[in-house]
Amino acid sequence: MIDYKSSGVDIDAGNEVVRRVRQLARGTFTDGVLSDIGSFGGLFQPDLTDLAQPVLVASADGVGTKLKVAFLTGRHDTVGRDLVNHCVNDILVQGARPLFFLDYLATGRLSPRVAAEVVQGVADGCRDNTCALLGGETAEMPGFYADGEYDLAGFIVGILDRSRIVDGRQIKPGDLLVGLPSAGLHTNGYSLARRIVFEVAGLSPDSTVDGMESGVTVGDLLLRPHRSYLKLVGPLVGGREPGTVKGLVHITGGGLTENVPRILPAGMSAQVDPGSWDVPWLFQFLQRSGHVSDDDMFRTFNMGIGMVVVCAPDHVEDVRSRLAQEGEPQSVVIGRVTRGERRLQYAQV
Amino acid sequence: MIDYKSSGVDIDAGNEVVRRVRQLARGTFTDGVLSDIGSFGGLFQPDLTDLAQPVLVASADGVGTKLKVAFLTGRHDTVGRDLVNHCVNDILVQGARPLFFLDYLATGRLSPRVAAEVVQGVADGCRDNTCALLGGETAEMPGFYADGEYDLAGFIVGILDRSRIVDGRQIKPGDLLVGLPSAGLHTNGYSLARRIVFEVAGLSPDSTVDGMESGVTVGDLLLRPHRSYLKLVGPLVGGREPGTVKGLVHITGGGLTENVPRILPAGMSAQVDPGSWDVPWLFQFLQRSGHVSDDDMFRTFNMGIGMVVVCAPDHVEDVRSRLAQEGEPQSVVIGRVTRGERRLQYAQV
Repeated sequence: MIDYKSSGVDIDAGNEVVRRVRQLARGTFTDGVLSDIGSFGGLFQPDLTDLAQPVLVASADGVGTKLKVAFLTGRHDTVGRDLVNHCVNDILVQGARPLFFLDYLATGRLSPRVAAEVVQGVADGCRDNTCALLGGETAEMPGFYADGEYDLAGFIVGILDRSRIVDGRQIKPGDLLVGLPSAGLHTNGYSLARRIVFEVAGLSPDSTVDGMESGVTVGDLLLRPHRSYLKLVGPLVGGREPGTVKGLVHITGGGLTENVPRILPAGMSAQVDPGSWDVPWLFQFLQRSGHVSDDDMFRTFNMGIGMVVVCAPDHVEDVRSRLAQEGEPQSVVIGRVTRGERRLQYAQV
Repeated sequence: MIDYKSSGVDIDAGNEVVRRVRQLARGTFTDGVLSDIGSFGGLFQPDLTDLAQPVLVASADGVGTKLKVAFLTGRHDTVGRDLVNHCVNDILVQGARPLFFLDYLATGRLSPRVAAEVVQGVADGCRDNTCALLGGETAEMPGFYADGEYDLAGFIVGILDRSRIVDGRQIKPGDLLVGLPSAGLHTNGYSLARRIVFEVAGLSPDSTVDGMESGVTVGDLLLRPHRSYLKLVGPLVGGREPGTVKGLVHITGGGLTENVPRILPAGMSAQVDPGSWDVPWLFQFLQRSGHVSDDDMFRTFNMGIGMVVVCAPDHVEDVRSRLAQEGEPQSVVIGRVTRGERRLQYAQV
């Protein structure tokens, strides 16, 4: 006699998770939410005031192998925030503010405690970004994931008026690239970073290393969540002077090298001066310990720059002072747009 | 000297996949799509004509352990259709038609061929449901998935007018449950089904068994895609007589037993006559071979009913004849709404 539980799926544990998730999700609900979690689909009525031509912007993403650091340290309440912030940035760079988010959490065997910690992070991230956690799926898949491991993906939908889409089309040679500091590795380059930190350098999550900031461990540094740029950059794209910000780049997998060209119009390239900002200690440590080339570093890691704002030279001081007003005084001009074939070149200026 | 490729992530293979996915996605684009895949977010301008109060409906889902059957058989072009159809049904039951879909495909090592097959299935499912494949994420995560294995999740967004939301609120005792045939197991119960088929019964994907339809193998039966009910049921909820369909239930994990009560108002239960339809051979085989109780069968598998339509007795013949017109002559009254505490009871009538 076989029942579902003996086949590896625990419906009771699943129901317990659903109860906890519902409670966490309710704490994120904004005015648009019409339904409680647990319906087949989540319902959201967007506020269309002032939107002549409403456009939805959607993005899907995962946390990637940064999850392995969560497994190693047993801290599961930060990766959800990584995921939400990553997704928020991915639609922000087209000018959109978030409406709602859904998550997908897949495990081998479901631990209600771990699942609740993961979703706590997701809910925290949603609340910080005024984004409703509208639904999600928690899947128990015996034989897919190692014990204590899971995968986490997310999906965001935002909205903006068609006239306000930021798409880089107005970018011209001579425009400047303003870099905003990242909080760490964000969610990219973890396969390489983990190999260097834990295998080559032989460190553990509790290790500290000469030169790193005091009071934190290697685990703390590696788990530091992906930063959301919504509060900094949102006011610049949602404001009264559309066009000041000509392009926005989220520095994700592929680094500055591969991401900046994604928004450049045909016939244009960009030149970045890698000496124009201080590359944070962690990146220097990874490069030194792993003997990684400059080229690989810049196409794998964000190197301390998590978002790039492109604007005309006449607007750069205004943009930087508004970013400072919104809470980030450390923006820096890291390069400029040139003629070329949609490539990024590094050159000391 | 360490580079990203030696750490297990192959950016070139990733780029090749992105190229193929773009091509497949373009084939699904509907009028609302503003952007090509590859921007940070996908842009979609919904047609709001005739929508006084547009409401978005969103859902996230995975394929679950049905994927293991794809791994066993080496056929990867059907599970994408499973995923899309599952998601389409999850928002259809609230009355919504799909706008767009995004997928999340995670692997250990990325095979461009397998990834393209998977996304081919996703694109086929999207096209069949007039739903744009607006974006997605393909993640290569060394150490997370066994060689040749992957996980696949999806996210859908649909739209409808607030006045047309189907939510079960008008359901009354005496209303009837009309069942629509499933195409097989759809995407639920695969952990138990695989254990019975491959371990207890000792079959292989190529096996045939006395009593099953001729010309198909066990693998064919198990891989048969989840059915989309959009073309059948969509016209009934989007038409001129809102309210005829009082409730819709997608029979997913938990079977009829757990899903029907999800849409019942307080103070109501439902009674289903398990003898009112012919339970397909595959379910009978699973029950017999695994010595599974009736109770476990009905809360694990769909038992041949993939969707339930709830309507007043006066409307049932109209509903059934319209379903027949749309292409499904095999709908059957399987039960009725009673007074109770949101439970499903089985009883011969």
